[in-house]
Amino acid sequence: MSPDPRLFIDTPLAAGAHIALERDQTHYLVNVMRREAGSGVRVFNGRDGEWQGVLSDVSKRAAVLEITTRLREQVGVPDLTLCFAPVKKARTDFIVEKATELGAARLRPVITRRTQSERVRVDRLQAIAREAAEQTERLCLPDIAGPVSLDQMLDQWPAATRLIFCDEAGEGEGPWGGTTGRPMPMADMLRVEADTGRPWAILIGPEGGFAPEERDRLRGLDFVRPVTLGPRILRADTAALAALTLWQAALGDWR
Amino acid sequence: MSPDPRLFIDTPLAAGAHIALERDQTHYLVNVMRREAGSGVRVFNGRDGEWQGVLSDVSKRAAVLEITTRLREQVGVPDLTLCFAPVKKARTDFIVEKATELGAARLRPVITRRTQSERVRVDRLQAIAREAAEQTERLCLPDIAGPVSLDQMLDQWPAATRLIFCDEAGEGEGPWGGTTGRPMPMADMLRVEADTGRPWAILIGPEGGFAPEERDRLRGLDFVRPVTLGPRILRADTAALAALTLWQAALGDWR
Repeated sequence: MSPDPRLFIDTPLAAGAHIALERDQTHYLVNVMRREAGSGVRVFNGRDGEWQGVLSDVSKRAAVLEITTRLREQVGVPDLTLCFAPVKKARTDFIVEKATELGAARLRPVITRRTQSERVRVDRLQAIAREAAEQTERLCLPDIAGPVSLDQMLDQWPAATRLIFCDEAGEGEGPWGGTTGRPMPMADMLRVEADTGRPWAILIGPEGGFAPEERDRLRGLDFVRPVTLGPRILRADTAALAALTLWQAALGDWR
Repeated sequence: MSPDPRLFIDTPLAAGAHIALERDQTHYLVNVMRREAGSGVRVFNGRDGEWQGVLSDVSKRAAVLEITTRLREQVGVPDLTLCFAPVKKARTDFIVEKATELGAARLRPVITRRTQSERVRVDRLQAIAREAAEQTERLCLPDIAGPVSLDQMLDQWPAATRLIFCDEAGEGEGPWGGTTGRPMPMADMLRVEADTGRPWAILIGPEGGFAPEERDRLRGLDFVRPVTLGPRILRADTAALAALTLWQAALGDWR
């Protein structure tokens, strides 16, 4: 038997609450999942944990959900932000879906010199993140900010937050300039950083990589940790997922 | 300036060779990438490294590539196989693309009890892998086998190869049965396994997870290493990518 469907609902959840479902949620439960009055539904709101609900007053367009018992206490995700240059639509969607599954707390679209897709529909990305959270047992949604330029982001960077700089496309252009040499493999960097519970962020560039002046600025900042992700050049979406995975396994909630 | 386009060509490569390009390759270079006679193209065949080529005799339907100098020596990928239950078409495509980028040597579709998509078009998956290899500087294509049942695969398993068993959907059903308890986080398992250069494989189930009898069989085999990938339940494609990443970082060519 498959588990009860699971919905994010932006409403306080407590035993005995009666919640009028929105039209699209009713449509999903009644017309897509074929649930009827008496069917179980699990809900979460990002604050009160996960609750069991039971459908009542079901019609094609509206339904009421009665909240019964708490299934799980609220747990958050580690303080990890993914800063990514928007790429083609389907790949941006993948980044948002996968970053949600992999437990990023915050997603931040960043416009770099070579970013080709500057239009970011935050509401659309939020809907993708919500569905990913619903389907993968996550108890909160990632916070998705509107786009910001790389320079502006770095100007306002909180000094305690480490920024992992994955310069995939840059690697193909030859050895790194400057005196610092080739960056460390990301797993090695994470091993030498003490686990002090500080916030972290990951920066992924556009398909064309970072511009030389962007790379120079990044490498000169003391909160930045340049890393490599292996000998092949990963696409932006792959690099984002791989970096999130390595961070969660080393410093996050996969331990 | 963007780097020269890069093509896989199943032909011996050596300085001075003249290669008549296939029609779809000509179309890509001439009509899509707008290359002309004299343009540079990089080629690899999975055996002879990467070579610089120069286009000549260009028409809309045919072109000749003259091979000049070797750019890189041939390097392979580590002996890592991804065994995965085919899922929906777009997610299967994603698994193949990402596994190629992440350096899997072999992809093996596996039919489990709860696998919903038993039709696997190997030629289609090969085309996806080829494009991913071309675009991410990989020097060889992954070997993609036809589908096999899980039981048959396990019956014929080479005893020296470790099989990492990622039982994502199973975790949601409660604590593991048996005396072995909950599996280790994958990164911990990789740390305790000695790096003896033996072959490894990763097994990812279908969206519905493994059936109880499949899980029992897997957990009873001494070459199997059950692992968890964090507290959220990852979709099959995300689990595949995360497991490949952790393996490459710990035992593969990302070190």
